[in-house]
Amino acid sequence: MKSFATLVFVFSFALPAFSQADEDVLKSIYDEALTNSPAYEDLRYLTKEIGHRLAGSPQAAAAVEYTRQLMEKYGFDTVYLQPVMVAHWVRGEQEQLRMVSSFSGTQALSVTALGNSVGTGDSGILAKVVEVQNFEELRALGNKKVEGKIVFFNRPLDYTKINTFRAYGGAVNQRGSGVIEASKLGALAVVVRSMASQVDDVPHTGALHYEDGVTKIPGVAVSTQDADLLSNTLKSDPELKVFVRTTCKMEKMEPSFNVIGQLTGSEKPDEYMVVGGHLDSWDVGEGAQDDGGGCIQSIDVLRTFKALGLKPKHSLRAVMFINEENGGKGGKKYAEEALTNGEKHILAIESDRGVFTPRGFTVQDPDLLTKISGWASLFAPYEIYEFIPGGGGSDINPLKNQNTKMIGFLPDSQRYFTLHHTDADVFEAVNKRELEMGTATMAALIYLLDKYGL
Amino acid sequence: MKSFATLVFVFSFALPAFSQADEDVLKSIYDEALTNSPAYEDLRYLTKEIGHRLAGSPQAAAAVEYTRQLMEKYGFDTVYLQPVMVAHWVRGEQEQLRMVSSFSGTQALSVTALGNSVGTGDSGILAKVVEVQNFEELRALGNKKVEGKIVFFNRPLDYTKINTFRAYGGAVNQRGSGVIEASKLGALAVVVRSMASQVDDVPHTGALHYEDGVTKIPGVAVSTQDADLLSNTLKSDPELKVFVRTTCKMEKMEPSFNVIGQLTGSEKPDEYMVVGGHLDSWDVGEGAQDDGGGCIQSIDVLRTFKALGLKPKHSLRAVMFINEENGGKGGKKYAEEALTNGEKHILAIESDRGVFTPRGFTVQDPDLLTKISGWASLFAPYEIYEFIPGGGGSDINPLKNQNTKMIGFLPDSQRYFTLHHTDADVFEAVNKRELEMGTATMAALIYLLDKYGL
Repeated sequence: MKSFATLVFVFSFALPAFSQADEDVLKSIYDEALTNSPAYEDLRYLTKEIGHRLAGSPQAAAAVEYTRQLMEKYGFDTVYLQPVMVAHWVRGEQEQLRMVSSFSGTQALSVTALGNSVGTGDSGILAKVVEVQNFEELRALGNKKVEGKIVFFNRPLDYTKINTFRAYGGAVNQRGSGVIEASKLGALAVVVRSMASQVDDVPHTGALHYEDGVTKIPGVAVSTQDADLLSNTLKSDPELKVFVRTTCKMEKMEPSFNVIGQLTGSEKPDEYMVVGGHLDSWDVGEGAQDDGGGCIQSIDVLRTFKALGLKPKHSLRAVMFINEENGGKGGKKYAEEALTNGEKHILAIESDRGVFTPRGFTVQDPDLLTKISGWASLFAPYEIYEFIPGGGGSDINPLKNQNTKMIGFLPDSQRYFTLHHTDADVFEAVNKRELEMGTATMAALIYLLDKYGL
Repeated sequence: MKSFATLVFVFSFALPAFSQADEDVLKSIYDEALTNSPAYEDLRYLTKEIGHRLAGSPQAAAAVEYTRQLMEKYGFDTVYLQPVMVAHWVRGEQEQLRMVSSFSGTQALSVTALGNSVGTGDSGILAKVVEVQNFEELRALGNKKVEGKIVFFNRPLDYTKINTFRAYGGAVNQRGSGVIEASKLGALAVVVRSMASQVDDVPHTGALHYEDGVTKIPGVAVSTQDADLLSNTLKSDPELKVFVRTTCKMEKMEPSFNVIGQLTGSEKPDEYMVVGGHLDSWDVGEGAQDDGGGCIQSIDVLRTFKALGLKPKHSLRAVMFINEENGGKGGKKYAEEALTNGEKHILAIESDRGVFTPRGFTVQDPDLLTKISGWASLFAPYEIYEFIPGGGGSDINPLKNQNTKMIGFLPDSQRYFTLHHTDADVFEAVNKRELEMGTATMAALIYLLDKYGL
């Protein structure tokens, strides 16, 4: 964490490379967002009228059409759909997870199937449980102790990490590839502690993946509260069994679209700056923070340019990527098409860490980080202080081999992993001003990068 | 706003005056708060089991006893109650506010009586309405156009202010003394647009005050959405009448208490550093952000010192002030007793801006601000960047003539005025990590000020 802090303070004193006029433009951008933005109402429609929208679902198709119409309505120069085949996973019947004890009987636990998981079969799986904290511990147990059992991965997020994405990053391999490691040792299924930043009764879904040649076994997530309960019960009753039943399955791929809107550049129309989020969400909650808000902000960045009469030199694109959650097909397709069509992408910014109060940006390229940090005093009046090294986002990542500079929008992270991939990620969890300030913060940075170059 | 930014960046480069050991202590403080703090559960009890607690109410007495017991349980060196007589206002029956039009009939509006207001009398008040934005506009109308009417103050918060407390500060005189200015011109009652940072259907209560020699007339607040409706209706129907009925009243004063817990200093036990919030809340919602959270954080600051074995040189006090919302009696009493007893108060910190993600502190004394800004790099790993000029808080303000340095805890402000003084200020609006990080941020600052002096 120390190097973090140092960077901010060193860079914030790079010589200013901006004018008084820039201060005025930034003020007009924030004022526009905070007084005239339709983003909150647009997000309400996306989340309350359409709802959650897993790739391949009818709701995802509705979201494609809705955002296309929005960008048409705001008068962008070009609005179009980019066809892409997407994964189509279905949850099936309500999942079941129960502790079955010869001492204390049966007790239901709060559970959600993990995305991309196979089901357990109609009769479910009943087996003893081995609890581990990580893959090393699992491997040390060996085949004999794991075979025929359900593996329970119970490593919590590290609460002492201030940015909760770092805590998430330190725990999520259990969810992503726990089924692979467990299956290699003959396990029948995996139960993962939810990727949550506090102990509560809400289970968090999210993607798992399989490996060719390794038997696909089912994976589910249990709420953090019930993970503690399960762990404590196992201590007193090591013979405890767990019953798990899911009917989820991966269907054949379906046709869908990335949705793209463009303001064509006045000087370098063939150089592109992208701002985007992902339009699909998990099939729980309403995908408001993840990532409806990021999509609506991206559209609103371009709308703000138009509303203020700011004419970008480069072509600006708002991109709604599809299928981020369980396949990343939209991001890959966008990068492929950019390459095929010879579209030079100089910059990509992703908003996919929620739409809480903006704190700054993560910037992948060190020289670009230095340049942006030189604008720190332009951002300070808006309580934006963090310009730190870090990635852009999973939708824009496929552009990285095209010499595209990657930036991630960085909002306050404290609340994100209380609702990420859960029923609690609804419109009501979004604050209007926070959403709008995010739009303004990205628009301000794009304005400066468009004007001064990368 | 520019001077704001400049200050932060200049001060953040004052020469460091701290050691590696301090970095370690700060890390231990944040780790303790984020992994072991009971604050969230303590706040749950205060808000869900006791609930709202206007001064003079039975619930306020319960809150006094609860926080006294908490500080006893945590083993503070001294815990005691400081008697104070408090205002006791009661809301009475459900308030009524209706537009009465000869064209379009009757329509109810979302309303709440303003604290300290007199009632309208049983039969209510039916009168024509004059809408104004401010006192100047009102006075320009003169007696003739105001007499016998209801004055509707409709100036919104300025959404372009980034810190919403500045927006609130620019609008709240309508609520606080609108009844005085309107009454001077013969008005019968006042309707005020709610002090809200967005347009919605939630009315916000809050204190008004009267002036000796000016007839007391009733005041109510209407939701921002219904304020817009009323304003638009008035444009098309200037003859529109409004009916308002409230049965609220000020009762006789009641005995209550400030609640004080102390860790006695090892070197300068007769010099005091106070951290506090106010224990009373409005009689709506649960007073979770305003200011149950600030009280629980204050207790948790001292608990953190004990848990980590940090022995303060000066005596540290956590103070739960009573009757902040509609009388300020607790704060005044505390300062009087400090003076009477010759207790030298060198520092007071108040947490009464909500318990959202901490952003920094407002510091009244310029030299102290310089000193604290010299510690900026100690706080940066915790995403704390704002050390800015500003006041402490209304409970500690009465200490200012005793040469006490005043500091206000500064959390993120974007959500505060969506729930301030409303039914929406409930436990569920508080995030566990944000609450805990606030405790840690105040404990860290107190640790440094106790160690290095003021």
